[in-house]
Amino acid sequence: MNYIITNGTLLLPDGESLKTEKADLYIKDGVIAAVGGTAPENFGDFEKVDASGRLIMPGLINMHTHAYMTLLRNYADDVDFSEWLFNRCMPVEDRLPVEAAYWTSLLGCMEMLSTGTTCFVDMHMYHEQSCRAANTAGMRGYIGRGLVGEDLYTDGLSRFQGCIDEQEKYGSDMLKFVLSPHAIYTCSEKLLRQVTEESEKRGMLRQTHLSESETEVNDAIKKFGRTPVEVMRDTGFLGKKTILAHCVQMRGDDISIIAESGSSVVTNPASNAKLGNGFAPIEDLRRAGVNVCLGTDGTASNNTLNMFREMGLLSLIHKGIHRSSVTAPATFVVDTATRNAAKALRREGELGVIAPGAKADIIFIDLTAPSMFPNNNCISALCYSANGSEVESVMINGKFVMRNREFAGIDREQVLYEVGQIAKKYL
Amino acid sequence: MNYIITNGTLLLPDGESLKTEKADLYIKDGVIAAVGGTAPENFGDFEKVDASGRLIMPGLINMHTHAYMTLLRNYADDVDFSEWLFNRCMPVEDRLPVEAAYWTSLLGCMEMLSTGTTCFVDMHMYHEQSCRAANTAGMRGYIGRGLVGEDLYTDGLSRFQGCIDEQEKYGSDMLKFVLSPHAIYTCSEKLLRQVTEESEKRGMLRQTHLSESETEVNDAIKKFGRTPVEVMRDTGFLGKKTILAHCVQMRGDDISIIAESGSSVVTNPASNAKLGNGFAPIEDLRRAGVNVCLGTDGTASNNTLNMFREMGLLSLIHKGIHRSSVTAPATFVVDTATRNAAKALRREGELGVIAPGAKADIIFIDLTAPSMFPNNNCISALCYSANGSEVESVMINGKFVMRNREFAGIDREQVLYEVGQIAKKYL
Repeated sequence: MNYIITNGTLLLPDGESLKTEKADLYIKDGVIAAVGGTAPENFGDFEKVDASGRLIMPGLINMHTHAYMTLLRNYADDVDFSEWLFNRCMPVEDRLPVEAAYWTSLLGCMEMLSTGTTCFVDMHMYHEQSCRAANTAGMRGYIGRGLVGEDLYTDGLSRFQGCIDEQEKYGSDMLKFVLSPHAIYTCSEKLLRQVTEESEKRGMLRQTHLSESETEVNDAIKKFGRTPVEVMRDTGFLGKKTILAHCVQMRGDDISIIAESGSSVVTNPASNAKLGNGFAPIEDLRRAGVNVCLGTDGTASNNTLNMFREMGLLSLIHKGIHRSSVTAPATFVVDTATRNAAKALRREGELGVIAPGAKADIIFIDLTAPSMFPNNNCISALCYSANGSEVESVMINGKFVMRNREFAGIDREQVLYEVGQIAKKYL
Repeated sequence: MNYIITNGTLLLPDGESLKTEKADLYIKDGVIAAVGGTAPENFGDFEKVDASGRLIMPGLINMHTHAYMTLLRNYADDVDFSEWLFNRCMPVEDRLPVEAAYWTSLLGCMEMLSTGTTCFVDMHMYHEQSCRAANTAGMRGYIGRGLVGEDLYTDGLSRFQGCIDEQEKYGSDMLKFVLSPHAIYTCSEKLLRQVTEESEKRGMLRQTHLSESETEVNDAIKKFGRTPVEVMRDTGFLGKKTILAHCVQMRGDDISIIAESGSSVVTNPASNAKLGNGFAPIEDLRRAGVNVCLGTDGTASNNTLNMFREMGLLSLIHKGIHRSSVTAPATFVVDTATRNAAKALRREGELGVIAPGAKADIIFIDLTAPSMFPNNNCISALCYSANGSEVESVMINGKFVMRNREFAGIDREQVLYEVGQIAKKYL
């Protein structure tokens, strides 16, 4: 189906900044065919969508999560980190059957769609279930299988080629595989070098958790005589195809090393604060020229996948730290969840933006919601007053996957039922 | 109308902590008649409300706001404080007619109700319009008229007795007057002493802004040789009837002075961060025994009146600052928005709690919303994963003022129309 979306306000790029403009949007074969003006030639049959009182913006991109973890939402809060990880989260994960991860990931997709996320970067042991869930939901996914151990090819946990083969059965470009070594404290330097080689050879993205906690940094200095960032640099892992989650505890030259490498950093403000890891030095990273993106992390440590809350947090935390009302402005924050993410995914101009030729991954936001009204500045509103519930409809790849808050591919009641059963049985 | 609310999960006090329990709730003549068990004798006619899959909790109390400021929502962000105040906010306020404040306050009430706030403490020049709006919305309000100047009785801006007289026309205990000198930098010490005297004589609460910014503290030290807290102490203003908004910049003995006085502190984490004032030392205040409450401040500096966002922020910011996953736990955070607020309002046991004899100010939260599911820990959910949109129905003083997201007293379309017109004309 082609669409002409009319009477809406569009969030558009304005050079390095953003602007809003009333204009029609033409969508053909999953792609934005034109912004404003009249219908392009040979536009064919279409449905006209009235978007009066709606802001239409690029779908948000959650650059770091573990969607299946919704099962552990609000399960182990206000406890020590080691209690949280070793006594609460890990035992549940260990006894969870593969099939369960499909339903818990789908609950994650439900939450992401209902709060305007159209694409997510995932890391998980049950990679195939994340793919299934994203496919059911109609979401774009960059799905990684968590890799740990000594050797990429022989380690039993590292069947990465099998994951790629399985993923290809979905036969679309909606799902892409990301090489995902877990962290420097669970992967050998050899494995990190192997991953880098495969990533470069195959033109695949690679991601990892990096410098999340003080313990990680202190342990690395003790073991390697170098910071986690230096260790990663020395394995060759850093680079333009690299996505680094967290980067909270930066030391010495860490920031300039990341900047020079062209790696992207994904900040997860809620998770980092909630686990007591602190606040990532986003302003310093940004000033050094690092491409900063935004993620929610998993619900065990957040406890929501709502990117609107994350956007607000990012700005408020850094304004508070720097005692400055101009730090982390709304335009920057919206970019971390849209254009910067597209850059990290190496799909600039194609994702995270409303422009001719871009994928039609867009969300419709109700501008008559009390939190948005009066519509003094829609870009500010996205960062400072929206709570995510203003998202009314979501289109991905030119298809409505949520329309007027009804899902197209997800059976809401069934997901609640299945996850409820899983929670009863395994928690 | 009396109500029996059945099949719901109740949020109940559990000594100093909180617990959830499945039990019926009996509401008669605006008051909670019984929690659990069978209907009290002579219960009379009632409506049975099925609350399956719903959490029923005390309505949230927004302890510091300026509801009329919704007009300035997202109007002046990411600019310097002086640009924000003197060139953006104040000129609009100066040209705004009295009547406009009714509609903009009502928009504030709409937003507060839809995110579960049942009672708010307001400070405003157009006190009578705040009262009108609260009355239309069916909300409980502690409404103050901002007082500035040299002398409470002669200063033209200080017609406080007129405000009290006018308020009494509503003839209910839903609206109470709060004596509200603006701040030490806009009020003389004489006026602060007069306010204290009137407050004690009349048994009325008093509130002020205190130690919000570094500038305020530095100026006070320069002018008085004392911190703002010390100045307030010396005027006699501090005490059990005193509500202090902000208290971000604490110096020397400030915290113990506040603790000893029995004053309550209202923290406004979003506003303090957003204006670049920093983070209030909530953990130190709490440890010193200060009664800590929560507020949103006005939408010009927040930019939402959503107490759920504020609860999440309060916890995450302080976990991040203290690098501790156990700081500012969910039970404490929920208390700041409920029981602690009731204590500050000197209505312990009557507001902020579900217990026999308490006012029936309760909210219904949808536990099947993705952000709440699975229901592993509803108290955690309120703090860490809810975004406020899960609030489905709101009862105040035993009346449904919002039911299944429809307002009883507010004409949503008219409010949007009127505020839209005001924004066009005066912004």
